[in-house]
Amino acid sequence: MSTQAAGGAQGGGEVELLVLGGIVVTMDPGRTILAEGAIAVSNGRILAVGPRAELAVRFTAGRTIEAGQALIMPGLIDGHTHLPMTLFRGLADDLPLHAWLEQHVWPAEHRFLNPETVRWGTRLGAAELIHSGVTTCCDMYFFEDSVAEAVREAGLRAILGQAVIEAGSAGADVERMVADVERFVERWRVDERIVPAIAPHAPYTVSPDLFRRLHALSARLDVPLLTHLAETQEESRDIVARYGRTPARHLAELGVLDERLIAAHCVWVNAEEIELLAARRTGIVHCPRSNLKLASGVAPVPDLLRAGALVGLGTDGAASNNELDLLSEIQVAALIHKGVRLDPLAVPAFAALEMATIGGARALKLDHLTGSLEAGKRADLIIVDLDENNLVPLYDPVSHLAYAVAAADVRTVVIDGRVVLDDDELLTLDEAEVRRQVRTLATEIGSLRSVRA
Amino acid sequence: MSTQAAGGAQGGGEVELLVLGGIVVTMDPGRTILAEGAIAVSNGRILAVGPRAELAVRFTAGRTIEAGQALIMPGLIDGHTHLPMTLFRGLADDLPLHAWLEQHVWPAEHRFLNPETVRWGTRLGAAELIHSGVTTCCDMYFFEDSVAEAVREAGLRAILGQAVIEAGSAGADVERMVADVERFVERWRVDERIVPAIAPHAPYTVSPDLFRRLHALSARLDVPLLTHLAETQEESRDIVARYGRTPARHLAELGVLDERLIAAHCVWVNAEEIELLAARRTGIVHCPRSNLKLASGVAPVPDLLRAGALVGLGTDGAASNNELDLLSEIQVAALIHKGVRLDPLAVPAFAALEMATIGGARALKLDHLTGSLEAGKRADLIIVDLDENNLVPLYDPVSHLAYAVAAADVRTVVIDGRVVLDDDELLTLDEAEVRRQVRTLATEIGSLRSVRA
Repeated sequence: MSTQAAGGAQGGGEVELLVLGGIVVTMDPGRTILAEGAIAVSNGRILAVGPRAELAVRFTAGRTIEAGQALIMPGLIDGHTHLPMTLFRGLADDLPLHAWLEQHVWPAEHRFLNPETVRWGTRLGAAELIHSGVTTCCDMYFFEDSVAEAVREAGLRAILGQAVIEAGSAGADVERMVADVERFVERWRVDERIVPAIAPHAPYTVSPDLFRRLHALSARLDVPLLTHLAETQEESRDIVARYGRTPARHLAELGVLDERLIAAHCVWVNAEEIELLAARRTGIVHCPRSNLKLASGVAPVPDLLRAGALVGLGTDGAASNNELDLLSEIQVAALIHKGVRLDPLAVPAFAALEMATIGGARALKLDHLTGSLEAGKRADLIIVDLDENNLVPLYDPVSHLAYAVAAADVRTVVIDGRVVLDDDELLTLDEAEVRRQVRTLATEIGSLRSVRA
Repeated sequence: MSTQAAGGAQGGGEVELLVLGGIVVTMDPGRTILAEGAIAVSNGRILAVGPRAELAVRFTAGRTIEAGQALIMPGLIDGHTHLPMTLFRGLADDLPLHAWLEQHVWPAEHRFLNPETVRWGTRLGAAELIHSGVTTCCDMYFFEDSVAEAVREAGLRAILGQAVIEAGSAGADVERMVADVERFVERWRVDERIVPAIAPHAPYTVSPDLFRRLHALSARLDVPLLTHLAETQEESRDIVARYGRTPARHLAELGVLDERLIAAHCVWVNAEEIELLAARRTGIVHCPRSNLKLASGVAPVPDLLRAGALVGLGTDGAASNNELDLLSEIQVAALIHKGVRLDPLAVPAFAALEMATIGGARALKLDHLTGSLEAGKRADLIIVDLDENNLVPLYDPVSHLAYAVAAADVRTVVIDGRVVLDDDELLTLDEAEVRRQVRTLATEIGSLRSVRA
């Protein structure tokens, strides 16, 4: 570990928050790890990161957190999720993606989603994410205004995309959907922590014309475009059959494959598509647990990383996972490619950690704000308790982060300089009430299942 | 869910412990799940399992646990572990098995293992296992007397094998090792919760003669024989090159492949070996996280289960995992085969849960004692808190157990009728002291690493 300063202006004085380490894993360009570090936060921004001995002298603070035997790191980034789907956690398992969507998820969504149910589902999902150390998420769903309201309440940083889908929605009113998306973006673009986005569901559910139109709208409004891409072999074959080209090539031909696009999954992309995705600087979000559970396959992440593609990690929602725990995604991402490729270096521990932090921030084009602990960035950080059985002994903090840290070890979460999880207590939501409300809603949803079964 | 009684004599009276549910997942032959169940425990044994309304009237108890919003199930079974290897957690990662063993693990073991270090490492591992809901483990290592002492202290049920290895131990004194194994078995066979065993390390590190001799000894002493089998492709090729037959066939030819044998891994077994392992009723222990991390591969578990083989789950030790969390193994076992085979039913949720409970007990030939909640078995049970964000809502307890329950959700653990984890507090070991001691030992071990690097 280095003990040199990881950055920060000289000078000092009074700050809002001073976190005294503890090991600080910065994920800065030099990948500095401070054996005994500290972070000064002012106006929601990181003012300085450096050795504890130095910062403890330079700064006084409104609040000082003594991290003790702990590890301090950037907040994690969940690059692809559907927060309200906590409502459907465990409703239907052990099915392939398309049967699961068409026979279970879409009917349940059609019947039960409304602004109120989406709000409660999002609150539960947001609470779960924060407890696992997530400070930024990228969500796409329906009734995204409710998602945004609940995400703001929870205190998360987020990219939120109002979903647009034609297939499966007979008689979808395209004009109304497009108008609604534009209204959504205009409403939320003023929010400090929310980046509104436009979310055409997937190339197999959105027509070429509409995809192009939504891309043009996202360019005009200067917001991200979110989609699902090449999640299953069936989807890739279907796109080839329909359009005579592979999914990523199809989007490139439509003129929508660029750095504005954030594409979840990319399981079934070939070598040419991998080069294309990397060259276009498209954000890619690897969702290993969901891809395994839905039997979609194992994304070619080692090849994507080797090609220089921008790859983050995602949970993809509680209905296909069934937990929202980015630490668990880090572990699976660090484990699975090794086993499948018989290569212990397929995705090294550090690469998995990068995908969950600075790499994920790059994929979402939020790395100017978050993803590492550097002076000038917003103060999104977490404190992981190291005095836990599963984290003893400690030879290498990166090894623990990739293979051993659990959500329960996350003790404190700071987002935009604000403490939202304080010594395991969530300050922004009444979690017991959220669970009670979701349980009540689930009684109704579950009764639908019994009728169908 | 059924509400019928899952078993238990009529009558009632005073018992030691009454657990009032909560959902009770019995894993009994009818796979009964009680929506609102209860369990009466007397003399360390399950006296009755049935509806709460009935048992609450029939029995009074010295101690009653009101499980509340919780799930009660059989204690989990970790079928293959090396508890003292917590000492080496994260010491060396991202290496293939043989480089990892030969360049890192074996030198560290050679230098640092002694009865005292093994005792502290085992205590830490046992604490970690109990917190993740494990009530029975099967361990093989060196200085197994120390392992046994620490396991007894922790209160775990266990099969413990004194390891025998020739390769890598120049000038190994075979006579001394065999005598020591026999002494170990004689010392521990009187213990109520410990089954001593004999553990030839693997077919590639133990000669045919010694393997046969240890098998004969295990038959004479009537104890299990533990080994590693077909963990890597390299090992399987090596056995074929040396003996002209595949690893399981090799053991069969030696006359040691029978129901006394418990074989960890079985990653590289072909169709003929799968049939052979099933026909001989050999216990097989699937260690998915370790096999992935060491890039050993993905065991053909769907084929083994289809062939009727006895398959359990194992953690394989903190140095190659790097956590001892059987709930995490259940999740990975439920997820990975689906993704790799593109088959959402490759290992269904229920099959993963079986491997961790009654299936694991069968693999270890302990199903007369544990692995399910049935009258007459020893009282090994755990209580999982359902009022957690990641477990709300609840449509199907089996889905949650396979995909969402985390170690932190395990609230209470009862082994042999004794409460060892009580509302998250471990009653049998001073955990803070255990962590402190292991941390101190690790300082020495870590300094070796710096010298080597």
